[in-house]
Amino acid sequence: MKAFETVVDGSMEDAETSVRAALADAGFGILTEIDVATTFRAKLGVERAPLKILGACNPGFAYRAILIDPSASLALPCNVVLESVEGGTRVSIADPRDLMTDVDLAELADEAAAKLEAVVASVDAGASPSA
Amino acid sequence: MKAFETVVDGSMEDAETSVRAALADAGFGILTEIDVATTFRAKLGVERAPLKILGACNPGFAYRAILIDPSASLALPCNVVLESVEGGTRVSIADPRDLMTDVDLAELADEAAAKLEAVVASVDAGASPSA
Repeated sequence: MKAFETVVDGSMEDAETSVRAALADAGFGILTEIDVATTFRAKLGVERAPLKILGACNPGFAYRAILIDPSASLALPCNVVLESVEGGTRVSIADPRDLMTDVDLAELADEAAAKLEAVVASVDAGASPSA
Repeated sequence: MKAFETVVDGSMEDAETSVRAALADAGFGILTEIDVATTFRAKLGVERAPLKILGACNPGFAYRAILIDPSASLALPCNVVLESVEGGTRVSIADPRDLMTDVDLAELADEAAAKLEAVVASVDAGASPSA
């Protein structure tokens, strides 16, 4: 799946604070949170580097998408993945154009993609208000 | 997005109980839950028919998928959508083959798709243990 992606210095906690602030500025709230590494440890007894999935949603976009095509809910929320990697934390946000492939949703997906691309650029630049 | 889908008699609560039991039988837990109608009411002040998104995940499948391709986490968990419709409740489960398009994940996506298709068939037949 296509994604907007950057690797930032510092801990996953710092990256999460920064990406949450940038998402909030763009009108996206976090509706879900999965601590993947902890889930794998609990369910499978395996260890891996910290990995988290946040489910981001802009209610206005989501509402318009579902009005146009009720099955858009199959593709919500938009995943924001945080992963500890060498040199810092990788931040990846799924490209909504890859999730909402219905032609009637193309304009909305473009609009959401532009906002999420700007979120990643802002995190990359350390430009979010909380950074 | 492609999905496995059925409309069952009865309330969304009954459908949710039934689909959760069938998912558990197939090794899928529910990691996230979004009450979309309540979120829209709270954030946008709009009313709509009940609509819920459950995030289902089979930890074994997820672990194998992320080992093969770390970006698989952009497509997890798998959405299970419950919606009040005329005549009952629509249950839709996103087809993992539409989410995991990486060729290296094709076999795993086929395997997960078969399990989720069987979950929907079981809910449709009222065959889940809790039904």
